[in-house]
Amino acid sequence: MSTDIPDVSGISIGILGGTGDQGKGLGRRFALAGHTVLIGSRSADRAREAAESVGGPVRGADNRAVAAEADVVIVATPWEGHRPTLESLRDELAGKIVIDCVNPLGFDKKGAYALDVEEGSAAQQAASILPESRVVAAFHHVSAVLLLDPEVERIDLDVLVLGDDREATDTVQALASRIPGVRGVYGGRLRNARQVEGLTANLISINRRYKAHAGFRVTDV
Amino acid sequence: MSTDIPDVSGISIGILGGTGDQGKGLGRRFALAGHTVLIGSRSADRAREAAESVGGPVRGADNRAVAAEADVVIVATPWEGHRPTLESLRDELAGKIVIDCVNPLGFDKKGAYALDVEEGSAAQQAASILPESRVVAAFHHVSAVLLLDPEVERIDLDVLVLGDDREATDTVQALASRIPGVRGVYGGRLRNARQVEGLTANLISINRRYKAHAGFRVTDV
Repeated sequence: MSTDIPDVSGISIGILGGTGDQGKGLGRRFALAGHTVLIGSRSADRAREAAESVGGPVRGADNRAVAAEADVVIVATPWEGHRPTLESLRDELAGKIVIDCVNPLGFDKKGAYALDVEEGSAAQQAASILPESRVVAAFHHVSAVLLLDPEVERIDLDVLVLGDDREATDTVQALASRIPGVRGVYGGRLRNARQVEGLTANLISINRRYKAHAGFRVTDV
Repeated sequence: MSTDIPDVSGISIGILGGTGDQGKGLGRRFALAGHTVLIGSRSADRAREAAESVGGPVRGADNRAVAAEADVVIVATPWEGHRPTLESLRDELAGKIVIDCVNPLGFDKKGAYALDVEEGSAAQQAASILPESRVVAAFHHVSAVLLLDPEVERIDLDVLVLGDDREATDTVQALASRIPGVRGVYGGRLRNARQVEGLTANLISINRRYKAHAGFRVTDV
């Protein structure tokens, strides 16, 4: 892999819909890595509660304030909230790197399955709603359980980073690599995000079968 | 992982559309592992040529003879030949484990991308054409270049094995693990095959970016 990694140490990170386990978990790890983290929610009160539960240099605010203030913004809403949240924050997110980690999944008795998305994927939907943002898809497969577990120091997986803007994907790869054990690996253009999002359904099946918190590593890279 | 692995050492393996690099590569590795391998093609002559080029205990015959004779049959046709090949071999494949490794991909200047498949995936298309076969999806991500390279003794990847028939997926996991370095890992039900097939487009992007022959490993399993 290239060692020409941008310095991202001073970047502040906002997390929209950050009161869920995925958002809190990512917030916790980025705070441990020394980043200023802003957890966003529709309700500023719930965001502040979540920030307090995470601890460290983490603040809570409503999604709009977070989108306006943070250097880089992670979208970690439930799939149902994806479109309305982004539609309401178009101006605040203009010009910024927006990292979409949302997995459009359905669940039934047989487990999880990938949902059809009109635009192809959650990330492509984000790109179509936010034409002035630099949308990158990443952090789909990292286990919220592991992110939140204080006993877990290193997380054994590669984060696939997808996007059409090289500088943006390089930045997000560098951010992913700030979490001990994690490596950010370029994973293709945004048009190939669907299968990376959908693969989370397979991970859920794997976790069930093997009683694991599975992730993926890319070999020969 | 469970160590309760079925003994597959005596299983003969047929490869439909086996004259391409993927088919020849898999045939080579299964022959090295001691399996009888039958390479199939529409043309028996081309199948025999391919078998000869692979060497070892590998024979060539037309697809119909291979489908009738082999214990387990791998479908390695180009995507265009997938449906017609399977439709013509419904009787021969009845009752057998059919391993689909076909990736429905398109290519343009920007690289590879996943194609839409009416049934959801190549594997689901196979299952719908072959209701009396036991369709399993596997071997999508293994590099034909590595499979064919005589310098490469071990291949560093996990083969995701998907299907709805536990005995069949266990058998295919065991078969995958016959290739040195490779591990067969259960990857979910057939309805989640689409993203595993499509992920081959991402691997192609990764290979291009990193000048690699990338694969995936599943962590914590």
